[in-house]
Amino acid sequence: MSSGSPCSLMVKVRPFHVSPVGLQQLQMSTVYFFRRQGEEQSTAQGLSALHLTMAAVVINASGEREHNGLTQTPLLKIWVPYENCDPNRRRASAVPQFCNSPTMIVMVGLPARGKTYISKKLTRYLNWIGVPTRVFNVGQYRRQAVKTYKNFEFFKPDNEEAMRIRKACAAAALKDVSEFFSKEQGQVAVFDATNTTRERRTLILNFAKERGYKVFFVESICEDPEIIAENIKQVKFGSPDYADCEFDEAMEDFVQRIDCYRASYMPIDDEKDRKLSYIKIYDVGVRYLVNRVQDHLQSRIVYYLMNIHVTPRSIYLSRHGESQLNLVGRIGGDSGLSPRGEKYAIALATFIRNQNIKDLKVWTSHMKRTIQTAETLGVPYEQWKALNEIDAGVCEEMTYEEIQEHHTEEFALRDQDKYRYRYPKGESYEDLVHRLEPVIMELERQENVLVVCHQAVMRCLLAYFLDKPADKLPYLRCPLHTVLKLTPIAYGCKVESFYLNIEAVNTHREKPGNVNVNRNPEDALQTVPDHI
Amino acid sequence: MSSGSPCSLMVKVRPFHVSPVGLQQLQMSTVYFFRRQGEEQSTAQGLSALHLTMAAVVINASGEREHNGLTQTPLLKIWVPYENCDPNRRRASAVPQFCNSPTMIVMVGLPARGKTYISKKLTRYLNWIGVPTRVFNVGQYRRQAVKTYKNFEFFKPDNEEAMRIRKACAAAALKDVSEFFSKEQGQVAVFDATNTTRERRTLILNFAKERGYKVFFVESICEDPEIIAENIKQVKFGSPDYADCEFDEAMEDFVQRIDCYRASYMPIDDEKDRKLSYIKIYDVGVRYLVNRVQDHLQSRIVYYLMNIHVTPRSIYLSRHGESQLNLVGRIGGDSGLSPRGEKYAIALATFIRNQNIKDLKVWTSHMKRTIQTAETLGVPYEQWKALNEIDAGVCEEMTYEEIQEHHTEEFALRDQDKYRYRYPKGESYEDLVHRLEPVIMELERQENVLVVCHQAVMRCLLAYFLDKPADKLPYLRCPLHTVLKLTPIAYGCKVESFYLNIEAVNTHREKPGNVNVNRNPEDALQTVPDHI
Repeated sequence: MSSGSPCSLMVKVRPFHVSPVGLQQLQMSTVYFFRRQGEEQSTAQGLSALHLTMAAVVINASGEREHNGLTQTPLLKIWVPYENCDPNRRRASAVPQFCNSPTMIVMVGLPARGKTYISKKLTRYLNWIGVPTRVFNVGQYRRQAVKTYKNFEFFKPDNEEAMRIRKACAAAALKDVSEFFSKEQGQVAVFDATNTTRERRTLILNFAKERGYKVFFVESICEDPEIIAENIKQVKFGSPDYADCEFDEAMEDFVQRIDCYRASYMPIDDEKDRKLSYIKIYDVGVRYLVNRVQDHLQSRIVYYLMNIHVTPRSIYLSRHGESQLNLVGRIGGDSGLSPRGEKYAIALATFIRNQNIKDLKVWTSHMKRTIQTAETLGVPYEQWKALNEIDAGVCEEMTYEEIQEHHTEEFALRDQDKYRYRYPKGESYEDLVHRLEPVIMELERQENVLVVCHQAVMRCLLAYFLDKPADKLPYLRCPLHTVLKLTPIAYGCKVESFYLNIEAVNTHREKPGNVNVNRNPEDALQTVPDHI
Repeated sequence: MSSGSPCSLMVKVRPFHVSPVGLQQLQMSTVYFFRRQGEEQSTAQGLSALHLTMAAVVINASGEREHNGLTQTPLLKIWVPYENCDPNRRRASAVPQFCNSPTMIVMVGLPARGKTYISKKLTRYLNWIGVPTRVFNVGQYRRQAVKTYKNFEFFKPDNEEAMRIRKACAAAALKDVSEFFSKEQGQVAVFDATNTTRERRTLILNFAKERGYKVFFVESICEDPEIIAENIKQVKFGSPDYADCEFDEAMEDFVQRIDCYRASYMPIDDEKDRKLSYIKIYDVGVRYLVNRVQDHLQSRIVYYLMNIHVTPRSIYLSRHGESQLNLVGRIGGDSGLSPRGEKYAIALATFIRNQNIKDLKVWTSHMKRTIQTAETLGVPYEQWKALNEIDAGVCEEMTYEEIQEHHTEEFALRDQDKYRYRYPKGESYEDLVHRLEPVIMELERQENVLVVCHQAVMRCLLAYFLDKPADKLPYLRCPLHTVLKLTPIAYGCKVESFYLNIEAVNTHREKPGNVNVNRNPEDALQTVPDHI
């Protein structure tokens, strides 16, 4: 079959088993699966379209397709009609559609107002919840165009040559935005630049209007000298412009650079711009003005921006102590701690005490092993059902060997796309991320928190903080008896790992080399960690 | 035992089985459950404390209590330590603690600015998500004090006698607020009055400060004459003040009443009041100013207020067509439609077409029976995993008769407190409400929507719209093959019920008279509906 055809055809009762055949070979009363080339192998970005790539046809005894019949897709366990093999013609979307046209988030504000911080953080959040988002930082384009930064004079309004370059950079960034939307399934572009003049903002609005993009402005307004000084310090350590110069020199230049913008800065005007959609953030979140939120996505963005803060703090992530089922290599279940797991709980208590953490909150799941671990700490804690381990459905309490034996194809499908694979009657990592969204939102609101959770849950939380993509997420290393301390710094997160010196079984199973459903059991079990 | 003792003592491996005994009779290696009198029977308000009412002690062979042992509470399936029978001394809270001190939501604004609408709607939402909330409408106190309303002159600033009464009413309402917090486990009081003077707001702030309550102001600002006229019309039909007078007369009086407030109205001042926590809502949601959000609860309130709208629309709720498992009286599962269920899907398509609904959105769960129902409509639809039926855990796909036979105690416990009861390895109605919160939020954002869902899910959604309390929620009637059309009117929701004339089995099981775990099977099965 030509690879250009919309569907490649495979005869099968379960997919991935058999080779392409001609239409004339189709049998009656058989379920036929069609697959668009390569789709179930693709990574987990822009999921909504991909969710429905599997479809099937039933031909009944009279040669007609069955009325109103549905079949379940093997990877995602989504019910789809037999009749329709082309996902582009499908009526259903397997997830709520929050993002119906591409959106440009346009930052506005003087330098050192946290625009890049907000851009990166918001982008990380949106990608994590499954909305493909990218930052377009015009400063980076400028650094590409002008390899070495001399000083603030580049930003003087009367520097015509520089102004020409800066305009060209903005135009190049906008061009890339449209490519991101049209060619890379992008849904949100965060346009990170000062955008301090009405003229520049009008240019962006026209660009977006011509192409049918929505625009939401995020203006950061801050006149608190302490906050600005702190931001400038961060810039010195973060910006390549000042990599080769002294601290004081960098500070001084940057202050002058800010002044270059100040003269022409026209904040978004609550009267003149009342038709625009925007949020103004005052003094890093003391006050917000929110105007004309257009849709679900913008509402979520506003909620997120209103919940984040910049107070220094640390988040501690730990799995429960080793459990009885961990010992015997069984997944899921609700067992208690092993003797070594109990030792870990005591070690964790000592560790946390020694950290001397101010106003520490402790969260657990509803599962016995996290609650036993937290009880030993001797401090108050809160139980979140949302922190429960991934639901392995029919595979709960099985060993990997048993899953391979009883659910051979499921085991292989999971290895093919571990993030999106959903256990029969259970969950996928993707489901878990959605379940954990309120936990992340509350973690953003809180200061010091210890989260006692589970392997898959910890991977999802960690992926959020460390900006790991969906295909890497299910393989992040979160060993037992190890605390990860996350501390926000500049635009990212510092991670410190503390192994508390209590032995535990390894529960990490790497992706095996062979993920084909026809693989032999040895290949399937190649990476299963040791257990009793 | 005296009913005043903190714990009544019952020996048992499963609770509710046995009679009180003395401590001296405690056996070694036995789990003892303690129950605070009446607690597991109480209704589902102020749940967090009640979640942990069950506890137990294990006495091991050496007569000592077991180290780090946990036991699961029978109703809520929460893991709690053996050692601690007093929930007030427990370290854990079974749900995240969002509301750490009582909060007063204080409305601000001229008459006819939607204050009562917002108050009632917000209160309904907070109660539904499990935060015990009550509106204190000062107007009602005034109507109690002055039985017959004459005209606007009562509200003139120079009417000293009236002013004295109005102050007394505000004071009485405040007193009731403090009783609600101290004696009725209230967590949020919505103080619904104009509160248009700084003086009144300062009085409220002082009242709250003395008692350790948080205060969050919600000011509604609107100068759009059309919106105000519409609000005044609603008032005429909603307020007892104008029950006995003509429409024009009421309108005229009310306009003059607004003018009485206008002279002394001092909006919240963004400079002078910058230390206060508040949201200002402009023109029914075109713009919001949000200042100093203090905690999770206030953040949730802001998010909710930013998502609601007043555009007229209808929400259609329907269960899937009758399923194969419905026919045989089995709960849960993921079966397809019965032949009658398929007929209903066709009838629903006709019904929806005939309703001629503008821009209708259709939502389903991820389950086969809702997707089959929606496929027949022939329109695009979105699948929400959050709309899946309640997870009955180990009871999935069982008949009630089988549950009674194999899980006799579980069956009785569910009848005792159907809202909070959690199926083993499954969910409670309370869990379902939390899972459905994002669905409600998006329903608030949307206009016309048809939700094709399930019995328990539909009950939760309906309870939100109709303001039904948690103990009534699991018994709301949501029969198969019946569409409920909900249309917001004034302060509530109009419900129209459309039975589409396709027969279906009854799946509604009323609470039986006898809910004791010792009841005989006939009593337990007394209300089970007929099935094959």
